Amino acid sequence: MKRYRNGEIWDFEHEMPVGIGCRDVILGLDGGTTSTVCICMPVIPFSDPLPDPPPVLARAVAGCSNHNSVGEAAARETLEQVMADALSKSGSNRSAVRAVCLAVSGVNHPTDERRILNWLRDIFPSHVGLYVQNDAVAALASGTLGKLHGCVLIAGTGTIAYGFTEDGREARAAGAGPVLGDWGSGYGIAAQALTAVIKAHDGRGPYTILTSSILKVLGLSSPDELIGWTYADPSWARIAALVPIVVSCAEAGDDVANRILCDSVLELASSVKAVVQRLGLCGEDGNGSFPLVMVGGVLEANKSWDIGKEVIKCISNQYPGALAIRPKVEPAVGAALLAWNFLMKESLKKGFKS
Amino acid sequence: MKRYRNGEIWDFEHEMPVGIGCRDVILGLDGGTTSTVCICMPVIPFSDPLPDPPPVLARAVAGCSNHNSVGEAAARETLEQVMADALSKSGSNRSAVRAVCLAVSGVNHPTDERRILNWLRDIFPSHVGLYVQNDAVAALASGTLGKLHGCVLIAGTGTIAYGFTEDGREARAAGAGPVLGDWGSGYGIAAQALTAVIKAHDGRGPYTILTSSILKVLGLSSPDELIGWTYADPSWARIAALVPIVVSCAEAGDDVANRILCDSVLELASSVKAVVQRLGLCGEDGNGSFPLVMVGGVLEANKSWDIGKEVIKCISNQYPGALAIRPKVEPAVGAALLAWNFLMKESLKKGFKS
Repeated sequence: MKRYRNGEIWDFEHEMPVGIGCRDVILGLDGGTTSTVCICMPVIPFSDPLPDPPPVLARAVAGCSNHNSVGEAAARETLEQVMADALSKSGSNRSAVRAVCLAVSGVNHPTDERRILNWLRDIFPSHVGLYVQNDAVAALASGTLGKLHGCVLIAGTGTIAYGFTEDGREARAAGAGPVLGDWGSGYGIAAQALTAVIKAHDGRGPYTILTSSILKVLGLSSPDELIGWTYADPSWARIAALVPIVVSCAEAGDDVANRILCDSVLELASSVKAVVQRLGLCGEDGNGSFPLVMVGGVLEANKSWDIGKEVIKCISNQYPGALAIRPKVEPAVGAALLAWNFLMKESLKKGFKS
Repeated sequence: MKRYRNGEIWDFEHEMPVGIGCRDVILGLDGGTTSTVCICMPVIPFSDPLPDPPPVLARAVAGCSNHNSVGEAAARETLEQVMADALSKSGSNRSAVRAVCLAVSGVNHPTDERRILNWLRDIFPSHVGLYVQNDAVAALASGTLGKLHGCVLIAGTGTIAYGFTEDGREARAAGAGPVLGDWGSGYGIAAQALTAVIKAHDGRGPYTILTSSILKVLGLSSPDELIGWTYADPSWARIAALVPIVVSCAEAGDDVANRILCDSVLELASSVKAVVQRLGLCGEDGNGSFPLVMVGGVLEANKSWDIGKEVIKCISNQYPGALAIRPKVEPAVGAALLAWNFLMKESLKKGFKS
């Protein structure tokens, strides 16, 4: 065991009764811009079939761990604390940890990965397997039970499609933010609805019930006031929160709202198709099967106008082998399952070598 | 003459030789987010034809006078200083001022107007005519030599269409910023070009020479780096500065760039058409003539792919009476001419009454 980087955080380890915490565990972390979740999972024997749902010993939650938002020191402390909480809750400690998979938004370059790995290396003994991934990868794994194969489509405030082949190639599409054309995202849908209200008001566009619905929810009396409302707060999530209104208006038969949702379906499907095409996930004849994991508020099937269902339909027309999956477990569990898979692969390699 | 609000600014008035500064003058101000221009113009007798170009005694320039950007106190000081400078340069002083027209961006509500008028009233004697307008109105007047009739289309970093009827009705379209659909603006064109580069890179869109052209100008090595570049600085003008590259690529035959410019032409024309339609500027038969003033970098006719010319063509198809005007004078002169027109109307009214 290496030096204790932060005495207070790991104090609980000294207070544990002898003999407890011997069961091998894995930590899976999902670090987003709003919250950070850490899951502690027992190491399932590689010979056993993976239980469904996967067993979870403990779950801990903390605030934002995006270093762009809160700074590196605060992000590190949050991540370290949430890991300690999950271990403590499961009656375990660092000596029981076999592997850690940290899935965080904004990890795009090998340098990001290396920086985080170096820091994790300070906390855990050298035999612990450490893995750092983009949060989209954990979302994929949450649908494939840890296997890195297929394509994940995330559509919440933002949107991204991320894919992996079984031989380790990867590709992404979209995920570049609203200025750079993520029009299928929750932000994109809502911004187009606001635009439609402005256009109906100044004569550039047709009448739409989006006007009365949006003004009512925001407590505004005229579309002119939308300008002030929009620019008063640059948060994309605040705009994206209007998506349910757009869905309601579309369900009520509004042509403009229907058009916006249809466009978003095409945009989202186009991201997935680009990834599938580049990776050849559909095989040479275009009919090969691959998992298509669907994640995020925009794709949730809780409305009669079901954006996720329409996206799947649109993709299946071109790629009939797409196997749509709506994950039953959260991304942090996906991260833990990723770590489990990595461990298994490494143990297989060692087996071959020996 | 009222009390001196700011002794230092107006000190020059005490130092003027007696007998100078007796000629009646008008001040026209154009207050934008980057700079503020004040023009001092002699009062032309109302019976005389307006000289072309209109006579200008002096021109003074200062920094930003947008109170949203620099705060109210700084904005006021800038405006007061630039007026003092223009008067001083023309060898005149406040006792010679007959009217002031202040055209500033962001004046949309009567409350904005009243606040600025109250403050101007503190600087000038009570007989001085004071007028506060949106900057788009001064742009229109710069093309119609002070007459409030017709439609102005401004397309620079942002875009807006603003129109007036001869009987005083007014209407606007667009001008709601990039989130709310100003896609024909310089920002809109450039954001679509950046999006096209991202889409070509991740497989969602076709190949385009915009990629190599934009990366070269920005000194970046991969489209992935555009994400960091875009979000590093939220200034819309910085993005809009890429428009000339889009025009060059379109001129070189790039389909994607051509498509973006064609879309922007349709968007800009749609703003003008909405205003013309709502105000009935084209008369009952749709063939009535009206001035169409074209202002801003996006509409400047310095390229073979001439966005402004295409917009005019598109509008003329529907409204053959549109008389396109590219102003030869700047908006501050337009503001001064507006003040001159207001003065003339008031003197005519007084004439009728007496």
